[in-house]
Amino acid sequence: MTTAPPDLLALRDAAKRIAGFAHRTPVATCATLDRMAGLELFFKCEHFQKTGAFKFRGACNAVLKLPAELAMRGVVTHSSGNHAGAIALAARARGIPAHVVMPKTASAVKRRAVEQYGARIVECEPTQEARETTAGALVRETGGTLIPPYDHPDVIAGQATCAQELLDEIPALDAMVAPVGGGGLISGVCMAAQGLSPRVRVFAAEPKAADDAARSKAAQRLLLHTGPVRTICDGLLTSLGELTWPFVRDCVEAVIVVGEDEIVQAMRLLWERAKLLVEPSAAVALAAVLSDEFRKLPMRRVGIVLSGGNVDLERLPF
Amino acid sequence: MTTAPPDLLALRDAAKRIAGFAHRTPVATCATLDRMAGLELFFKCEHFQKTGAFKFRGACNAVLKLPAELAMRGVVTHSSGNHAGAIALAARARGIPAHVVMPKTASAVKRRAVEQYGARIVECEPTQEARETTAGALVRETGGTLIPPYDHPDVIAGQATCAQELLDEIPALDAMVAPVGGGGLISGVCMAAQGLSPRVRVFAAEPKAADDAARSKAAQRLLLHTGPVRTICDGLLTSLGELTWPFVRDCVEAVIVVGEDEIVQAMRLLWERAKLLVEPSAAVALAAVLSDEFRKLPMRRVGIVLSGGNVDLERLPF
Repeated sequence: MTTAPPDLLALRDAAKRIAGFAHRTPVATCATLDRMAGLELFFKCEHFQKTGAFKFRGACNAVLKLPAELAMRGVVTHSSGNHAGAIALAARARGIPAHVVMPKTASAVKRRAVEQYGARIVECEPTQEARETTAGALVRETGGTLIPPYDHPDVIAGQATCAQELLDEIPALDAMVAPVGGGGLISGVCMAAQGLSPRVRVFAAEPKAADDAARSKAAQRLLLHTGPVRTICDGLLTSLGELTWPFVRDCVEAVIVVGEDEIVQAMRLLWERAKLLVEPSAAVALAAVLSDEFRKLPMRRVGIVLSGGNVDLERLPF
Repeated sequence: MTTAPPDLLALRDAAKRIAGFAHRTPVATCATLDRMAGLELFFKCEHFQKTGAFKFRGACNAVLKLPAELAMRGVVTHSSGNHAGAIALAARARGIPAHVVMPKTASAVKRRAVEQYGARIVECEPTQEARETTAGALVRETGGTLIPPYDHPDVIAGQATCAQELLDEIPALDAMVAPVGGGGLISGVCMAAQGLSPRVRVFAAEPKAADDAARSKAAQRLLLHTGPVRTICDGLLTSLGELTWPFVRDCVEAVIVVGEDEIVQAMRLLWERAKLLVEPSAAVALAAVLSDEFRKLPMRRVGIVLSGGNVDLERLPF
């Protein structure tokens, strides 16, 4: 396993590796949203991916790539969200154990999904420190391999396959837009654009309430969240990592920041007009495309990665 | 224009006529739902159809088939639901006027959609009699052609194209299941099965609270609703018609009746597990497939028509 930033070769390997495990998700269009945006929009539907989010691509690539002698000891991760389910299902696909550290406060829905995929759940206090300590102890106990949610070359290469499919299917895109949290997805989008279509511009979309990527980009150095983060986008709470920050710094043209109201409105448009059942963390990318900042740019054909659809139906924002 | 029951020729003509106007909608699958049903399920996603429902196929076929000298005088219909929007958009596609009679009580969302598609709305009292009288007066006033929502050969042939696409794309289906209200969709499904794959069995799914088709089938004669109908399936409130009843009588193997709770549960499964944003009137078909009655049948591969996705987000049943 290398720690060098992944490249086109890694992307092609990942695509071969996960074929037959991950879905090749469809690309949707919507005439009404095109009219509203004044653009041709192409929505890469990762909410139809297995486990309901793009996360399965990276998890699957990382799990399948493990050498057999390591893999048999299982994998370990800590996550309260989509990465936990993705690792659990990827491990089941390979027939190896998965140990998932989840904070006590994780929602019942998400626990249930991880359990259904056959992973062992280990509870911990809801702090970053407790999560890391518990995961570390599990690694020592089981000899399993820790697979982090985004700051890992195999995870990034896996996420890149979603942008690769979009570029394959839709010719002559001017830009791709994806949400940024920890940065695994946007790094994958950068990797695919750089390797396959360098003229396609890449934009990141971020909630104002979790704008570490925008602040890092402005400061030209990696800045982390300094306090607790409150946004409806529960998939975008984390800061960029050591591997993902250089992609945002060097390959993302701009990080477009949007407010909570704009995100809810974009989510509602996707549900009502396009019948695309996405979570708030996915809608942030459409909100960015509908923003004044983006509208100023001379664009015609824009790909939007709808990152996932795991939304709690008991707690809808409308 | 003929009033004879439509046949395979009519289906093929309809498919040619609406190509380029209506979407060829995708077919979705979901491993979790397959496990729950003990079947391979193939969901024909008509909620991704233009106007958010299969209705656009039939409306489009009927509007495009009008001879030019009739078409220029426009089309007239009465509907409080998906057919109104479908006729409005089909008329706009042909560049002719549409006059839509809507009851005063129709929801603001549905009015807005019809207005956005450029139709003229004429309000009336919310009774069947007022709707028909007002539409009749409009026909006399404008010389336009009345296009009813289901009991019309061109409408049925248009709806049949959706089952044709499903049969084209998914080989070796054992059965197709679709909801039944007025019967336009299920008649189209029968037409496609009879003409293209006679060994594919056809089942209709109906809410217990609106079970005129099941009662008609049992009595072997057309029975209408006798009182007011209350079901969450607002697209399935009407009784079968003179043209659609013979399809249900002769070609539908059984009308499977399901309760409101089962419908809500099926809708929730489609949203949560498959991320398919369908309306209750569509979920009834999955509810039927999950029923004890259907489970007894020896089946392996079943196509389900998800008829539409026009759901009021302010009034979700969960």
